[in-house]
Amino acid sequence: MSEGTAVQTATAPATGRRGRRAADVPALVERAREGDARSVARLISLVEDASPALREVAAALSPHTGHAQVLGLTGSPGVGKSTTTTAIVRALRQAGKRVGVLAVDPSSPFSGGALLGDRVRMQDHAGDSGVYIRSMASRGHLGGLAWATPQALRVLDAAGCDVVLIETVGVGQSELEIASLADTTLVLVAPGMGDGIQAAKAGILEVADVFVVNKADRDGADQTVRDLRYMLSLGGRHSEAGHWRPPICKTVASRETDSGIEAVLEKVEEHRQWLESSGEGHRRRAERAEREIEAIAVASLRGRMGDVHGSAALASLAAKVVAGDTDPYRAADELLAEL
Amino acid sequence: MSEGTAVQTATAPATGRRGRRAADVPALVERAREGDARSVARLISLVEDASPALREVAAALSPHTGHAQVLGLTGSPGVGKSTTTTAIVRALRQAGKRVGVLAVDPSSPFSGGALLGDRVRMQDHAGDSGVYIRSMASRGHLGGLAWATPQALRVLDAAGCDVVLIETVGVGQSELEIASLADTTLVLVAPGMGDGIQAAKAGILEVADVFVVNKADRDGADQTVRDLRYMLSLGGRHSEAGHWRPPICKTVASRETDSGIEAVLEKVEEHRQWLESSGEGHRRRAERAEREIEAIAVASLRGRMGDVHGSAALASLAAKVVAGDTDPYRAADELLAEL
Repeated sequence: MSEGTAVQTATAPATGRRGRRAADVPALVERAREGDARSVARLISLVEDASPALREVAAALSPHTGHAQVLGLTGSPGVGKSTTTTAIVRALRQAGKRVGVLAVDPSSPFSGGALLGDRVRMQDHAGDSGVYIRSMASRGHLGGLAWATPQALRVLDAAGCDVVLIETVGVGQSELEIASLADTTLVLVAPGMGDGIQAAKAGILEVADVFVVNKADRDGADQTVRDLRYMLSLGGRHSEAGHWRPPICKTVASRETDSGIEAVLEKVEEHRQWLESSGEGHRRRAERAEREIEAIAVASLRGRMGDVHGSAALASLAAKVVAGDTDPYRAADELLAEL
Repeated sequence: MSEGTAVQTATAPATGRRGRRAADVPALVERAREGDARSVARLISLVEDASPALREVAAALSPHTGHAQVLGLTGSPGVGKSTTTTAIVRALRQAGKRVGVLAVDPSSPFSGGALLGDRVRMQDHAGDSGVYIRSMASRGHLGGLAWATPQALRVLDAAGCDVVLIETVGVGQSELEIASLADTTLVLVAPGMGDGIQAAKAGILEVADVFVVNKADRDGADQTVRDLRYMLSLGGRHSEAGHWRPPICKTVASRETDSGIEAVLEKVEEHRQWLESSGEGHRRRAERAEREIEAIAVASLRGRMGDVHGSAALASLAAKVVAGDTDPYRAADELLAEL
């Protein structure tokens, strides 16, 4: 397998991101739906850069979204997220599924444009037009990835992916937010990483739908499983009737073996069925859409506020406040009334 | 001097903050204007806690604001901000001015409810009804102090303070924001604190209207003055014609002496006159009011957004997004149209 041009690694073409030429959005969406990786990459760049075409892209995508199953995969650095992702992608491809991968893990070899990582992926999936891989570039500001990732997810969904896998490192609030985009979240732990489990206690337990004890051929794997079971027994949520009890799977995902991955995917399928039958799946998607709408609304208002900065309206209100003719709260009300 | 009830240390009475009884705002403002420290404290607590009466308080205060001269005093921990503040207050009192102090420096003995600090102040100003001292409690979230401090400033202004002194530690963005509330900002440095000057380079130079080299009886004071002069010569802003050139004063402010404080206050008065003659003073106050109005408007919108969270409108928009009938951007527009 050569590292050829057929590889569907969805990195942005230079002209797309730098050229800033006006995008023919309907044509891009059409070609993306036909399986053109460059169009997928271009669309993701457009939403990632918050380009002027963002709204047009969102509108053009929406009729084609809602199909993809979204898997989150999170865990501390070193637990083997990338090899597990690769193994899951391989298994899904063997089952005939179209797969998208969004790597938003700064420690992942796929993120930050690390060439080695891309090369590994290319060797695995070279010439496979059913896999899109995208490293989400950090926007350099808080919440940047949390903002761009749902939009990128929509692009891959509309492009016909059956499964989109979001890989994040399980530390920090924004990563947890990204994990919350998933229908099913896999939390990876590894034996002998007591730190990881300690960290997990803080919040990862709450987001886990399926636990994966990776590197299960190592000493201490059974102890790690027992630790997780014990922690799950302490958290009341999962023991209630009608609730999903996160199963614990053991895997050995490496370049040589995918041991245990099939069992993980069976649990994912069980969870998918539970989401559907319990109504929890619909509830999660609705809640996710609510959060997204709200975030866009607040950002849009901030944008309009930015437009009025230095405007005559704001200046005149400020002058009144300085003179004591009004107070800042009434002035803010007047400003909002003008927007 | 006993630590008696006459002390005007404006800490909140327990019933005011915890009791949550409805406040008679006009009566409080009336009594605060007559010099009642407990009413001043209660009003500051109301604005600090973002109580429901906040808007009423702001409206009742505004006709009485715009009188106070606002001095910012900032510098690294250890340069002697608290002793300098005390010395400045003493000098202003001797000149017959009514003075308010807002201590928003977490390293200050007056902040965080440190009893020792309050006791020191009480000994200096016991029985003096012309001084209000208020430690701004950290609200525990980013921007909390930056939010509450301008409101507290309004209370002290309306209560008839001729000068309000805001004491902040000169590290971090929020402290710089608070310093920017001042008409005149004093930046304190001390000899032999090279670190402090290095830190100063980062942003404090920009906010300084007057430099105070405190502990000027120590070795290296002259070198510190030369260092500051050199740094000022590098920054082009202050060397332009028509601009204010920040003077450098030397002080020895301690429990025993106020050496140099009179010269500092002369420079402050020169700066006040420059602010007035150049129009810069009015520009600063207008800009401050603009920022405050904007911040309140954004917070108000976020609040309204919070109200609609879980509302039928948002839920129905989210359902449309999930179904692919609309996209989150159009949904956000619709949501905003309803607000």
